[in-house]
Order: sequence, then structure tokens, then C-alpha cells
Amino acid sequence: MVDIETVAGLSMKTDSKIVLLVVDGLGGLPSEDTGLTELETASKPNIDKLVGECECGLIDPVALGVTPGSGPSHLALFGYDPTKYEIGRGVLEALGVGFDLGPKDVAARGNFCTVNEEGIVVDRRAGRIPTEKTRELCGLLKDIKVEGAEVMIVPGKIHRFVVVFRGDDLSGDLADSDPQKEGKPPKQVKALSPAAERTARIVNEFIDKARNILKDQHPANMLLLRGFAKHPDIPTMGERFKLRPAAIATYPMYRGVAKLVGMDVLDTGTTFGDEIETLKRHWNDYDFFYVHVKETDSAGEDGNFGRRVEVLEALDRDFPKLLALKPDVLVLTGDHSTPARLKAHSWHPVPVMLWSRWSRRDGLKTFSERECRFGSLGRFPTLGIMPLMLANALKLSKFGA
Amino acid sequence: MVDIETVAGLSMKTDSKIVLLVVDGLGGLPSEDTGLTELETASKPNIDKLVGECECGLIDPVALGVTPGSGPSHLALFGYDPTKYEIGRGVLEALGVGFDLGPKDVAARGNFCTVNEEGIVVDRRAGRIPTEKTRELCGLLKDIKVEGAEVMIVPGKIHRFVVVFRGDDLSGDLADSDPQKEGKPPKQVKALSPAAERTARIVNEFIDKARNILKDQHPANMLLLRGFAKHPDIPTMGERFKLRPAAIATYPMYRGVAKLVGMDVLDTGTTFGDEIETLKRHWNDYDFFYVHVKETDSAGEDGNFGRRVEVLEALDRDFPKLLALKPDVLVLTGDHSTPARLKAHSWHPVPVMLWSRWSRRDGLKTFSERECRFGSLGRFPTLGIMPLMLANALKLSKFGA
Repeated sequence: MVDIETVAGLSMKTDSKIVLLVVDGLGGLPSEDTGLTELETASKPNIDKLVGECECGLIDPVALGVTPGSGPSHLALFGYDPTKYEIGRGVLEALGVGFDLGPKDVAARGNFCTVNEEGIVVDRRAGRIPTEKTRELCGLLKDIKVEGAEVMIVPGKIHRFVVVFRGDDLSGDLADSDPQKEGKPPKQVKALSPAAERTARIVNEFIDKARNILKDQHPANMLLLRGFAKHPDIPTMGERFKLRPAAIATYPMYRGVAKLVGMDVLDTGTTFGDEIETLKRHWNDYDFFYVHVKETDSAGEDGNFGRRVEVLEALDRDFPKLLALKPDVLVLTGDHSTPARLKAHSWHPVPVMLWSRWSRRDGLKTFSERECRFGSLGRFPTLGIMPLMLANALKLSKFGA
Repeated sequence: MVDIETVAGLSMKTDSKIVLLVVDGLGGLPSEDTGLTELETASKPNIDKLVGECECGLIDPVALGVTPGSGPSHLALFGYDPTKYEIGRGVLEALGVGFDLGPKDVAARGNFCTVNEEGIVVDRRAGRIPTEKTRELCGLLKDIKVEGAEVMIVPGKIHRFVVVFRGDDLSGDLADSDPQKEGKPPKQVKALSPAAERTARIVNEFIDKARNILKDQHPANMLLLRGFAKHPDIPTMGERFKLRPAAIATYPMYRGVAKLVGMDVLDTGTTFGDEIETLKRHWNDYDFFYVHVKETDSAGEDGNFGRRVEVLEALDRDFPKLLALKPDVLVLTGDHSTPARLKAHSWHPVPVMLWSRWSRRDGLKTFSERECRFGSLGRFPTLGIMPLMLANALKLSKFGA
């Protein structure tokens, strides 16, 4: 149903402007008290006024029944098949701490741990040492030199950090050093393919030197690495869809994913209102804008139904400012569902509304999970959003004669 | 979602009769005055009476967001994946002028052009010379003999014509002679694969001889060829689906595409009423009838909303004559959308209604883009139409035990 490679081949540059507004974790579940979802509970007159003039539907980020992480679900929205293009855990973690990852980089998730005198892991999280302590320990490790790569260490929250190895011909095809359970020693890092042998030696040299530096610390006297991954080789949205794209997002990870697909990441503030101001300021510089709203997802993960409703209502109040810019194509959707009742990402399809001068008018009364069932777009993979946006922006040439 | 190869493998010959009524460019967009589409505006009591007894849905000719040409969108309706089976530009052009293309033929689009004394193209269209002049010039070229192929030339409109090379082992894998812009000489035709070397020599010999014949003409003193393509190697509908198919269409191109997939092309008149008469006359000779109505598309390309409505209303008046033949399966749909507002083919999905004794009864009130959203067929690729027609005609055996 979605043939993204054919669509990429048909794409052409025009002046029309697309805005993709991604409300993170948008889809919800009915509250057990009221029987209404967050979208159904929120008062959102501006969005509900536009929805009647839109094409609507329900989208599956990866596949029916699959709960996606933020990486794959965003790749799908940006027109990259998430089962084909993978963003490794280490890379996602590096993007999450705001590290400016480049094509020569292999990233891994790190955590401090406690080993006993025999070198056996007795606490994989080193008693969840405070973030401040992790910063201090990362400072001790930052001067480690290894042959063949530059090593960069970025502290994260509590006992977590990110290590990035930068050098020529490095490979992320490595097994974890983390033994996954206590009572075993940290593993030597093994290459999973011949091309990764050299990188494995580099990483093990780093681990040996770190062991030496940490040995007298307590309780964090060792580290574990996992999720080695290289900066993925992804064609940019410019190359692929002839777009000049920009990202407006407040959280590092989303800015990072946008950067991976070649978007310019714009400086912005912390609220949706700030994001609209940024959009306005750069309106003439780009033809594709990804605008990201994070708090719906965080509130979902916290199980905070009311907060999700509030964020949606705030979004609706600023919505007319977005419309005032008169985008040629406007899509409002989410990357996945994060129902407050589930306190987690979920597999439920996400409502989507698309407006353009050329979109059909489904005449729906409100924008919600239930109402979007009746939209003309039907239920389809999130990967279909980019083809629809490009088509409605008249950025696709005809297929065949 | 559609597994056409499996369906082909299950197909079997029966006496039941299928009618596929293709209303070209059927899907529309709401008028900016009334908010209604062409289908919603037309008074069509006969169609709307049947629709309640039908299964309905919305179909995407090639893929979500993709605007198809007539070739691929018809292939999909006939049960051929349009991304797998391609009809080259030259072939489509030859079909469009009614040329009876065979398996040994390579066709190209030609146009007369003007070159200066240095042989540089100064007008790629030779001032758009009148059709009459093109006929005369094609007459001068028709006696050119080349080694290894018979050459046939069919004049088209204004400066355009079609050249067909017929011979053993010819290949369409050739680059254009058209330099695409003025200020450059026509190119030598180059083979794009070793198997096309001999054909390239044949075509270049033809071009050299044509240059000589045209050199004293003005302004059309040279020709350009492009879109070389061979008669595609497509299994017939008989081989593939065990059907005995016939085409009833008034325009050469559609008759040509039908012939490509092995349909018998029946003589008919110029109106839908004539087509129904033809259908009646041949009712006992075939088990699959493709009936094509062109004017909805032409009126759409002209931006003539009112004319589209008239054509639909005329179709509806003759619709009972079609029903009187009592087909076992009747499908009414389009090959793609051609909204009058857009004045072009578009990516919008096309409404479809399917009636058979075995179809479910969706109970829709009218046949339109909006109403078909509520049909039980949902939204699916056009390629799914053939499996549904065959199934409803009880022409598919069971899959597995």
C-alpha cells in the first residue's frame, strides 16, 4: 500500500510548504471513569474546527500490534521504513543526551557497576549512584587515550552515561560487555563480524584503562557497555524527497533523530508557543517543518491523564497561530500512542488529520481515535504519511504515462 | 494485502460473467462553491439504487499518494502489479495512435524539430507545425529501408508521430536522440545494454536517412526520437486468470492496453449506449468484459466540473440496460481520480462498488467518494479488484485444505 521508494523517485522541488506537527504519544485509551480518551476529553475548538475540512485516518507506526520506540516511529513519519533503517540503542542514547553524532562515530550505552574482588559483578547499577557522582567519574575517564580512536564520554542520569568512539573504519557490530545478570564478570567485547575486530580491540583497551582508573572507587568501581551502534547510513530528506527540511523540537533525542535524516535543527524555546515563534521566524527558509510536542508523551508515561488533557488544550489555544502561517499542507498526528492508563508507549494506531487545498473533506466532527475511523484515509502504515504530504503539496510527478 | 500471484494460481474457468465498468478519472474533489464532488452532484438514481446492494470501498491505483498515468492504473485493474509490469512511453504512444503493436516491435515517440546549419536544435517542436504537415512529412519518411528491421511511421497530432521498428531480437533499451534542450545537436542513439547494440545501429541508420530526406524542409528539417520501448512481455489474462476477456472502449490507447493483456478488442460506436449494444451482441462469447468510459477524464483535465456531472448522469440513464444483461459480477469504478478542480490526474483514492449474488450488502445510500469510506471493502490497492471479481464469480478455488 505504501511504496516509499517509488514515491522518493517521483519527488520534485517546489515552493509549497509542509508542516508536520507531531504530538508525541498522541493516541490514548478511554478513562475507566468517563469512557473518554484524552483527545475526547480535551476541549480543542480550533483543531475540531479544522478537522471537518481534513482527510483523516488511523496510522500504525511500524506494524499491526507493534509498540514502537521513538526512533522507529519518527523514522516512519519522515518517510523511512523503520524495519529497513535502524537506529541502534547506543546512537539513540547519544542523541538523547544531545551528543552531536557524526558518520565516523560508534556509540554505546554505559553504566557504572560494582564488582567484587574476583571481578564478579555484584550490582549492575552501582547502587544507582547520584547523577552528580556519575559526572565526576566521567570526568576521570575523559582523558583515556586509545590507539585508533578518539573517545568521548557524556554523563547521563543516575549511573548512566554514553561513550562515543570516533575514528576511521570503526564498526558497531560488537557484543555487549554487560553480562546482563549479576554473579558474572563483565565480558570481553567481541566482534560480531570480521570488520569489527579492530574496533573490539579499541573498546577493550578503553575498558581495561577504565577498570584501572575506577578500581579504588566505591561503589562504582567498574563500567559496563552495551548497545554498540554506528551512526546509521541514512540518505537525507533532501536527497531522498528533494525537501529542504527543518526541525523544531525541544528535546535532544528528537532533535538528534531529525539531524540524522538531514534536517536543520532550529534553536527554539521550551513551549509550543516558542516553537510557533521559531516556525514563523524561519518560514521563508525551508519547505518542510517538523514540529514536535513532547509533554503528551511524558504525561502518558507518568499515567497522568489530566496533564495530557491540559497539554492538548494548550496546544489548541496556540493552533490558530500555526494556521495563520498558511501552510500548503498541514498534518497533525503522533509518533505512537502513550495512553495514560497504560503508562507506556503502546501499539494502538494513532489518529491523523491532513489539510491541504487538495485534500478531500471528510467532514468529521472532532479529532479523536474513534472519529478518525470514519476518515477517508482509512487505517494505514505511518510510512504513508510522507507520500500523502508530498502529493498534497504537489511535490510528486506522475507515475507512468 | 493483495497477493495476485497466489490468486492467479487459484483461478479456474467457469461460465460466470464479469463486467468491469471503468469510468476514467472517476474520483473528484468537492467544488469550492457547493462543497460537493462531481459524483455527489450528479443525479444518478439507477446507480444509487444498486449501491445499497453492493460492497464498496476506496482504491489506490499504484500506492498511497501516487498519481498514476493511464497505463499503470489500467494494468492494476486488470490484475497486473503496475510496479512490476511497465508499459514504456513509446509503446503507450503507439497504442494511443491505434497502432497494432506486436511482440517483435520497438516503438518510440517522435517529433519534428528545426536544426540550424551547424545541426544544432533551435526549436525542439519545429514551431508546432500543423497536423496536416506532419502527415505529409511522415509520408516522405515511410519508404526508408534499413537493414534488419521494418520501419513504420504513424503521424500524431501537431509535430508528433510514432516510429515502430519491427524485427527479430530488437531491444528497447536505448537512450533518446532528443537532447531535451535547444542549443545542442540531436544525440546518436546509444544502447543502454549490449543486447541493444544492433538495434541502436538500426535506429541511427534510420535517423541518418531521415535527416537527408528532411534537410530542405522548413521549419521541420529534422526529427527527434525518445521513449524507446518494446512491446512488454505480459502474460495474457487467459493464461493468468483463465478468463476469456473482451474490451469495449472507444479510445485507441485503452483498446491498446487491453490488447497488451490479451483481450479481444471489440468494434463499437462512440457513446456508452453504443458500448452497451456491443456488450449485448457479444454477451455469449466471453466471460470478462472491460467497458471503458473516457469523457469523465477528458472533462476533468479540462477543469469542466459540469461536463463531468453530465457524463455521469448520461451513464446512469443507460445503466439499467447493463443490469438487464444480468452479469454475475459487476464492478463500477475508475482507473484514477481526475478532479475538475485540479485539471489533472491525481493521487486521491477512487470509489468502487461491487455487486454479485455473493457480495455483502453495505447498504450505502449513494455512490460517492465520501460514502464509500463506509463500505466494507475499506481502502485497498486497485490490484485487489481482480481477486474480488474472480472470487465473487466463484472462479477461485480454495487455498490449502
